[in-house]
Amino acid sequence: MFDLIIVGGGPAGITAGIYAARKKINTLLISKDFAGQVGKISSIDNWPGTENISGIEFLENLKKHLKRFTIDIKEGEEVFEIRKEKDSFEITTSQKNKYSARAIIIASGVKPRLLGVPGEKEFIGRGISYCSTCDAPFFEGKTVAVIGGGNAGFEDALDLTKYAKKIYILEFSSEIRADEILLEQAKKNKKIEIILSAEVKEIKGKNFVSALFYQEKESKKMKELAVEGVFVQIGHISVGGFAKELVDFNEKNEIKIDFQTNETKTPGLFAAGDVTSIPFKQVVIAAGEGAKALLSCHKWLKNNNKI
Amino acid sequence: MFDLIIVGGGPAGITAGIYAARKKINTLLISKDFAGQVGKISSIDNWPGTENISGIEFLENLKKHLKRFTIDIKEGEEVFEIRKEKDSFEITTSQKNKYSARAIIIASGVKPRLLGVPGEKEFIGRGISYCSTCDAPFFEGKTVAVIGGGNAGFEDALDLTKYAKKIYILEFSSEIRADEILLEQAKKNKKIEIILSAEVKEIKGKNFVSALFYQEKESKKMKELAVEGVFVQIGHISVGGFAKELVDFNEKNEIKIDFQTNETKTPGLFAAGDVTSIPFKQVVIAAGEGAKALLSCHKWLKNNNKI
Repeated sequence: MFDLIIVGGGPAGITAGIYAARKKINTLLISKDFAGQVGKISSIDNWPGTENISGIEFLENLKKHLKRFTIDIKEGEEVFEIRKEKDSFEITTSQKNKYSARAIIIASGVKPRLLGVPGEKEFIGRGISYCSTCDAPFFEGKTVAVIGGGNAGFEDALDLTKYAKKIYILEFSSEIRADEILLEQAKKNKKIEIILSAEVKEIKGKNFVSALFYQEKESKKMKELAVEGVFVQIGHISVGGFAKELVDFNEKNEIKIDFQTNETKTPGLFAAGDVTSIPFKQVVIAAGEGAKALLSCHKWLKNNNKI
Repeated sequence: MFDLIIVGGGPAGITAGIYAARKKINTLLISKDFAGQVGKISSIDNWPGTENISGIEFLENLKKHLKRFTIDIKEGEEVFEIRKEKDSFEITTSQKNKYSARAIIIASGVKPRLLGVPGEKEFIGRGISYCSTCDAPFFEGKTVAVIGGGNAGFEDALDLTKYAKKIYILEFSSEIRADEILLEQAKKNKKIEIILSAEVKEIKGKNFVSALFYQEKESKKMKELAVEGVFVQIGHISVGGFAKELVDFNEKNEIKIDFQTNETKTPGLFAAGDVTSIPFKQVVIAAGEGAKALLSCHKWLKNNNKI
């Protein structure tokens, strides 16, 4: 029986782990791969104090920092289910191993929904991005496409007007789903061109993205756009489904938390970082949330005489 | 007229500044000294991915990162007052300079209340600490004193039992102010000794703290404790008083915020980091809060057609 199990080995999970170990809480951290979204970032430019670092190197630093402390780690196992017992939680992993703890912090991150077209995976970090706040500055003076005509897509497109010279917004359906205010702002901006009823079919390039192909849904014609960047904003896939009996999700499939304490609706079950309803998915925010969740959880364990 | 003024040059303010500059928001950052509490930390061991760094070096990295971007900075001025105008805010500084902006982020940090006794300032970072979460691991096997019998003092003392061999809690009044549950836990722990009606008079040492002197209030006798560490937990001094007409404070003199958006009660006025009611004062949490406040503020400026 552990005092605490942390699910997830990204910035939120590892930061919670560092804080847990320093509090000498008997902790197990379970991570499928110690990577998640951050590992795919070619260049992190907004981790405070570090002008530039690759996602892989950043995660290596986090892991090294964590392993300096005394903490149990299970790498390569995926959490399959969390069940509430009378006075504890039981976790079952994909390998059918079972682990118990008095408290849990879920920090399993988020996966962007992929387009699922040829060229997409090949060019991640080389023209394909899922986060304009992270990557817009790389596209100074370039022509880019944003895929998705919801709020996230329009916010990305407006963000990109500060850097790119031309931004296409491609929406699959025949109507814009973004809020009116965003639509108005986009229409006023001469850099933005909206293309409706467009189904993205392929992304091409050499070392870097150079073209996007889409089909006009009515005419069935195939069209080509010369773009050097593609920002995909077609939603996210929840990766906290293994806790579905114990937490509430919002409309974006994010785990609802109390933003002050990181508590979910189940006492002793906390969540932190991109998996939660925190409104912005950023490395430094996730790390801060990981620390905050751990300190709340520590207080909860103490106040309930569990440690 | 700036789009945004950030007040404060600690981890929250600088992170907000980095994010603001990357969003190309026309921003002014005002900082008295680019230091605050962090500059006093001799060794930061819990900044994720960095095993060990001095507070001064850490702040240098943050400043260097910030200055890579385009942002206006006023160093050496202290904000004296923030006033709300019809459609903007006006800031007056100690030099009587005036600056206007459409939105404000207050990230001016917090000051711990000092004991005000000889030896205190001399030994900050060399035995004197104001944060057990930050510094407890340095006191493995040592004897320490915690000054302050409120919740914060008892929480520090219980934290320290994981490392220190003996912990005195000194309380000025004749009664414990901490919650019953903390008092019970402390009484059960043989490492902790509570001393009431004790007025700390002096801290002595050579390179590092070696003794604490206090007066027994009734007998007026002076007593000496051989300790290598002194954790001071006698409250905080608000440093957000310049905004007192525009924000609400909690009982700890912290600016009340919406924990999801970092909004204060005044639209367009945001706050982040230690100055706020966020329950934990940690560098990584403050940095995350700075990013979150900026992204909320950016959304607010956009949604209100101010940028």
